[in-house]
Amino acid sequence: MASDHQGPLARLRRGHEELVLRLLRTHGPLSRAELGRLSGLSRTTLYDIVVALMDGGAVVATAPAPAERRRGRPVETLSLHPEAGQVIGVDFARRAVHVAAVNVAHEVIGSASEAHSAGLGWEARADLAERLVARLAGGSLRLGVLSGVGVGVVGPVDDLSAAAERTEGATHPKPSPAPTRADLPVLLRKRFGAPVLVDNNTRLAALAEATWGAAAGVRDVLYLRLSYGVGGGLVTGGTLHRGAHGLSGEFGHITAEPGGRRCSCGKDGCLETVASIGAVLEAHGGAADLAAFLAALPDDPAAVRVLESVGTRVGTVLASVYNAVGPEVTVLGGELAEAGPVLFRSVEKALRAHLMPISRARADLRSATLGEAAGALGAIALVLHESPLLTHYPAPDSLE
Amino acid sequence: MASDHQGPLARLRRGHEELVLRLLRTHGPLSRAELGRLSGLSRTTLYDIVVALMDGGAVVATAPAPAERRRGRPVETLSLHPEAGQVIGVDFARRAVHVAAVNVAHEVIGSASEAHSAGLGWEARADLAERLVARLAGGSLRLGVLSGVGVGVVGPVDDLSAAAERTEGATHPKPSPAPTRADLPVLLRKRFGAPVLVDNNTRLAALAEATWGAAAGVRDVLYLRLSYGVGGGLVTGGTLHRGAHGLSGEFGHITAEPGGRRCSCGKDGCLETVASIGAVLEAHGGAADLAAFLAALPDDPAAVRVLESVGTRVGTVLASVYNAVGPEVTVLGGELAEAGPVLFRSVEKALRAHLMPISRARADLRSATLGEAAGALGAIALVLHESPLLTHYPAPDSLE
Repeated sequence: MASDHQGPLARLRRGHEELVLRLLRTHGPLSRAELGRLSGLSRTTLYDIVVALMDGGAVVATAPAPAERRRGRPVETLSLHPEAGQVIGVDFARRAVHVAAVNVAHEVIGSASEAHSAGLGWEARADLAERLVARLAGGSLRLGVLSGVGVGVVGPVDDLSAAAERTEGATHPKPSPAPTRADLPVLLRKRFGAPVLVDNNTRLAALAEATWGAAAGVRDVLYLRLSYGVGGGLVTGGTLHRGAHGLSGEFGHITAEPGGRRCSCGKDGCLETVASIGAVLEAHGGAADLAAFLAALPDDPAAVRVLESVGTRVGTVLASVYNAVGPEVTVLGGELAEAGPVLFRSVEKALRAHLMPISRARADLRSATLGEAAGALGAIALVLHESPLLTHYPAPDSLE
Repeated sequence: MASDHQGPLARLRRGHEELVLRLLRTHGPLSRAELGRLSGLSRTTLYDIVVALMDGGAVVATAPAPAERRRGRPVETLSLHPEAGQVIGVDFARRAVHVAAVNVAHEVIGSASEAHSAGLGWEARADLAERLVARLAGGSLRLGVLSGVGVGVVGPVDDLSAAAERTEGATHPKPSPAPTRADLPVLLRKRFGAPVLVDNNTRLAALAEATWGAAAGVRDVLYLRLSYGVGGGLVTGGTLHRGAHGLSGEFGHITAEPGGRRCSCGKDGCLETVASIGAVLEAHGGAADLAAFLAALPDDPAAVRVLESVGTRVGTVLASVYNAVGPEVTVLGGELAEAGPVLFRSVEKALRAHLMPISRARADLRSATLGEAAGALGAIALVLHESPLLTHYPAPDSLE
């Protein structure tokens, strides 16, 4: 075999190796039994493949921590070698850049954030991202093994996905006098020298919660984020759902109050007009900012009333979406979700009231766990799930 | 090669053949260029594979009809040989059984229906399905090449999907004294001797419209059916979305009228309580049945008013789901959709009013085209998309 790098047996074997590497890349650490089930390979074939991948250093075996062993023989898990590749995620939020890095063994290497003024230009934002990543690289991030960059941005991304495709192989993009958001993929590819995948950052937060967060490993997830804007995302069958024109997950623009006030989107009565942080502070009238509003809970009856009203609207809208898509887990995130039980109780009450009775006992509402890193982590999950890198090992045409 | 049936080259080649067959099975007829793009195989490899598959009779080439040629050289399409396999679909509706048969070249061989009383037992319904299929088999259906049976039923299907899995390899199931709906997969497997896949028939109608109907080839489809019940289905990224517990697409149970009348599901104000055929006839008060109601349109002002009110509710609920999932095409089906423009105009008006302005110009509302055969055709599409048959050619373990 070793002398037959180009022969058909070696190529067949590489096809199996590629499958095993792809499964470990997408799922993270797996036991041999899980790997056998997912790959469809026989035990003996899988054994040979895993031995070869471990000998070559691509795959490592890890015994579980003592606390996880429970009874019986400890189950060893296999994962990609932590240094076989690293992925960074960058979330360009409205007024901050968040970055995170994960290795292909699905271990988070680190994360960093920095706030900036709302009007900062895209070149400067890309610079900031580069500095934050360099800070991580001062630790254990090695840009030499960077496999991809996932990027989250605010708003629709139709234009950006197309731009990202155009950068394939473009190492010397034409410089633009005043880069716009549409230039982001090129700006980042130039800085990091790796392929760039882009999506909406709220949708990416949904994918992050379904990968590492409150709904880790769940295949059907409904995620709603209550922040300065209101939005969300759907994970359907284990995959981030984009929708046509990249316009899925616009839960904040579902009508929550017919004939209600005008929303920034141009329509009336959107959920965002009653459930955004701005709307909550305005309805309350007293608190200077969200921190003050949350600090006063639960002893401020006016704040409690506002949250109960918001929770009712949120739960009613969530129920409509729930009846439509049938999620296994519903995750509530964003800064406003930190209001905790006062909000969750009223969301849950309205949600159950508007669900089919058969679904009521099954509804599983959880609080998001990833905080402000969710967008950047979701961008990484996007690359791990969808980048063609490593999934063609070797490339399909070299199989011939 | 011909003498090397078990050798590594032959096995590698079979892997490529399997890929080409699977693509033709899932997508139906494809040009060589489309096949090249979807398979990732080089032109020369694909050429060799296709020649071999055509020599073996598994694949046939078809020149397009003159009308489709337009300008330039006609583009030949490749498809599976029509007799390489056939799939039947059976829709067990409330008071009728519908069957259809399609070959693996995606050509509809035929369809048949028969009404029955609402209380007919499941053994008798399975018998009826067998008789209807035999009628098709008297034509060109050949049960000898039957690759699978897709089945649609009313209501949730969690129990049935599990039952279908249990029949794998069970050629002599234990006879049950009084078969229930849960025995359906076993009853059908016994009669047809082929694997059985089951899903909700309204969801299957969504898949059918996205495969052969109003939204043929569209990857993100929202389908709503207005019939004696109100329901629907979502096709997301080209795949039928099931949701956790098989409870997606319950658009009829989204609250359309807060505090409205009690629905059969046990909740109040569901869309079904205002937009089902029964609700429409009751609101109108005059027509004896749907046929009489539709016949009086558009000259019956009371009927027009009822439909406009229904259309407003339907459009408002559709908008909520649309904002959540971002479909490319929205399909309205069921007998009530035959009311035509009077209904569609008010649906469209309410839909646009409750969509984000950015989505309004993109919304594409269409009338369903498959009629009562949709459930059976969707059951066939389910088998063509999801059955493991033929997709493992050879089985993964024999590749070693």
